Amino acid sequence: MQDIYPSRHAQAAAFLPRLDPVVHGGWHEGAPLSREQAAQFDRDGYLVLEDMFSDEEIAFLQGEAGTLLADPDALEEETVVTEPGGREIRSIFRIHAQSRVMGRLAADERLAQVARFLLGDEVYIHQSRLNYKPGFQGKEFYWHSDFETWHVEDGMPRMRALSMSVLLAENTPHNGPLMLIPGSHRSFLTCVGETPEDHYRMSLKKQEYGVPDETSLAELAHEHGIVAPTGKPGTVVLFDCNVMHGSNGNITPFPRANAFLVYNAVGNALERPFGAEKPRPDFIAARGDPDRIVPVGGPLMAEAVA
Amino acid sequence: MQDIYPSRHAQAAAFLPRLDPVVHGGWHEGAPLSREQAAQFDRDGYLVLEDMFSDEEIAFLQGEAGTLLADPDALEEETVVTEPGGREIRSIFRIHAQSRVMGRLAADERLAQVARFLLGDEVYIHQSRLNYKPGFQGKEFYWHSDFETWHVEDGMPRMRALSMSVLLAENTPHNGPLMLIPGSHRSFLTCVGETPEDHYRMSLKKQEYGVPDETSLAELAHEHGIVAPTGKPGTVVLFDCNVMHGSNGNITPFPRANAFLVYNAVGNALERPFGAEKPRPDFIAARGDPDRIVPVGGPLMAEAVA
Repeated sequence: MQDIYPSRHAQAAAFLPRLDPVVHGGWHEGAPLSREQAAQFDRDGYLVLEDMFSDEEIAFLQGEAGTLLADPDALEEETVVTEPGGREIRSIFRIHAQSRVMGRLAADERLAQVARFLLGDEVYIHQSRLNYKPGFQGKEFYWHSDFETWHVEDGMPRMRALSMSVLLAENTPHNGPLMLIPGSHRSFLTCVGETPEDHYRMSLKKQEYGVPDETSLAELAHEHGIVAPTGKPGTVVLFDCNVMHGSNGNITPFPRANAFLVYNAVGNALERPFGAEKPRPDFIAARGDPDRIVPVGGPLMAEAVA
Repeated sequence: MQDIYPSRHAQAAAFLPRLDPVVHGGWHEGAPLSREQAAQFDRDGYLVLEDMFSDEEIAFLQGEAGTLLADPDALEEETVVTEPGGREIRSIFRIHAQSRVMGRLAADERLAQVARFLLGDEVYIHQSRLNYKPGFQGKEFYWHSDFETWHVEDGMPRMRALSMSVLLAENTPHNGPLMLIPGSHRSFLTCVGETPEDHYRMSLKKQEYGVPDETSLAELAHEHGIVAPTGKPGTVVLFDCNVMHGSNGNITPFPRANAFLVYNAVGNALERPFGAEKPRPDFIAARGDPDRIVPVGGPLMAEAVA
């Protein structure tokens, strides 16, 4: 099978055409987004949804996040990731499966119906995590397209997935918020592979791969600019699987936290990785028969308490 | 002599009262700042001045910065500082003495008269530098009060100095701009010294000292908030010597550059350091008989070309 999104093979980076829609479902009356919102997501590759949850629901989610962060020993060990060189927790993966509250959030119709509409299919959770960027010492996260990694390392065939970041702490311009390059999702930037002269690199850690080159990043940023959505807790930032994004570090005392949910179309389930021998573990990229989401209505608290 | 601003001696941090004015000169008709601007500097500890320079002057300064960065070998070697672990230049010190253009900028009446007014005295350059924070890999600069260091390590007796950052590239919210805690200049936050249990720290590098503690920083930030002035090239950000400030890293492709000038009152010239055996070198903190500035009017280009 020919790989329509080859990456990490060539000696030079290239912008390849995107061969998939961004909005897979046609807009219709009764769609969970307005026509303008759908058009904006299509054009920019991201969308900010405010006031989706009640204050009580936000407090409920924050409480659950606090519980998960406070007792990591209760979780599957491999799903808890600490800051490089530190002990503070940076991410907890697979929260939709480890926490009933987070599972309920992932299935909530206010999110899941939007995902189904944009992806034009039933959906499942490809990856979920609780992100926590502590104050004072929060590290940066360099630019990347999620799809590049998901395709090469996990075997996601097409661009038919999206991420939702549900803010659990205020995102200000100062505490290292998510930065996006709007419009960058419209082409696929390949990453450079090992060149013959570069064989020593094979001993480097995996994260050395899949890094976009500076020239292409500068080109994207100069053409499209950079945005960093801010918002109060409960704000939802949606973005396409191929939009270029990253974040600066955070020396402010204000931590940043979000529940992060990646929805993939059921018809886009993982195959063999396109550029790796062995797929990454299941808690990072769900494999096998997709566990399709049945959207649930009503306040978040109801079912979790029942 | 009793030290009214002791730091790095005690085992716990403390907020001490500021025993010096912020605006040392009384406002009067004909002052180089409006009454409102003077009051704002007094209250917040910083001020942003826009449209101070013509487009031609800004281009002239940017050109000079480019020349200095392009040929570091023409400069005193010790004044050129590179990024930790990298080769890109982060700062060039003593630019007012090494570059005729930068010397002219430091003496320009649009800046120097403001400094003389706010400090209520004739002034000289305590420190000057060209700061360059490269794109993609720009490192963060942790919170600090300049005065704490200048007092302890350089022997600056009182709070009667201020900094001016003349932006040479656009400061956006995303490229690691200067962050300040407005109002933090109104008290002196002491830094913790070595505790008896901490003797091993004596082998650490100097920058491990003079670092404010997280609890006090959180207190300041929660009380006063954080601001990060943005602006186009030519914008001047003024701030008091004791205001708490720092900056996040910069993963964007957009570098940040500024000409940085520290004015000190002639009557506040350096004495023996209040907490160090040996003062830091002269290119970091000018010692000896102050080289008082005679303000110069007219466009920046005129004299430099003459």
